[in-house]
Amino acid sequence: MIEVIDLAQKFNLFHEQWQPKIVGELNESYVKLVKVQGEFVWHKHEAEDELFLVIKGVLVIRLRERDLTVHAGQFVIIPRGVEHQPVAAEEVQVLLLEPKSTLNTGDAVGERTVEAGWI
Amino acid sequence: MIEVIDLAQKFNLFHEQWQPKIVGELNESYVKLVKVQGEFVWHKHEAEDELFLVIKGVLVIRLRERDLTVHAGQFVIIPRGVEHQPVAAEEVQVLLLEPKSTLNTGDAVGERTVEAGWI
Repeated sequence: MIEVIDLAQKFNLFHEQWQPKIVGELNESYVKLVKVQGEFVWHKHEAEDELFLVIKGVLVIRLRERDLTVHAGQFVIIPRGVEHQPVAAEEVQVLLLEPKSTLNTGDAVGERTVEAGWI
Repeated sequence: MIEVIDLAQKFNLFHEQWQPKIVGELNESYVKLVKVQGEFVWHKHEAEDELFLVIKGVLVIRLRERDLTVHAGQFVIIPRGVEHQPVAAEEVQVLLLEPKSTLNTGDAVGERTVEAGWI
């Protein structure tokens, strides 16, 4: 079923933070939406590049050697193997694109690891 | 080099319509930006799913059995093998995500076929 996906409408369907929701699939990747605030765990993805497109708010992605600040209307791609820590002072709405195999916490599996579901 | 990409800034760098520009790569796919207006050719991609995220304006994607209307802040994924024709009454800014192998005209190679370059 081909359907038009409205980002704002989808973001209104959930309130949980750090729990990505799947809203589309293509070429063995998922499009996910996530709300984040505070500090996430440092992690990396061994075999997956990950795109963060900020829809609302300001996301900081800490790398080991510098911080990236990503505003609404901007994206960044974190290549496989690069350690990163997403951080947000206030709630941010982010669109993610990553292979279906990608875990939210990458190699840092623990209490913040969640399996994404469709919304 | 990991860098933050600003969509509005990138869209300001070109004026050509129907000529996708590459602004990122991940997992054997490219993120492209394109400005479109008017009617494109009917085509399909045999082996590639294609995501259209509208950044500005209103894009219509005609399918054989119906039309999809995609506003700013909405996306649609056209699965491989599905014939489609993008149409826009006024200029639209679109973010595309598709495998690196994807030609803009899919199986309808002709005068409107262009090779995307980085911007």
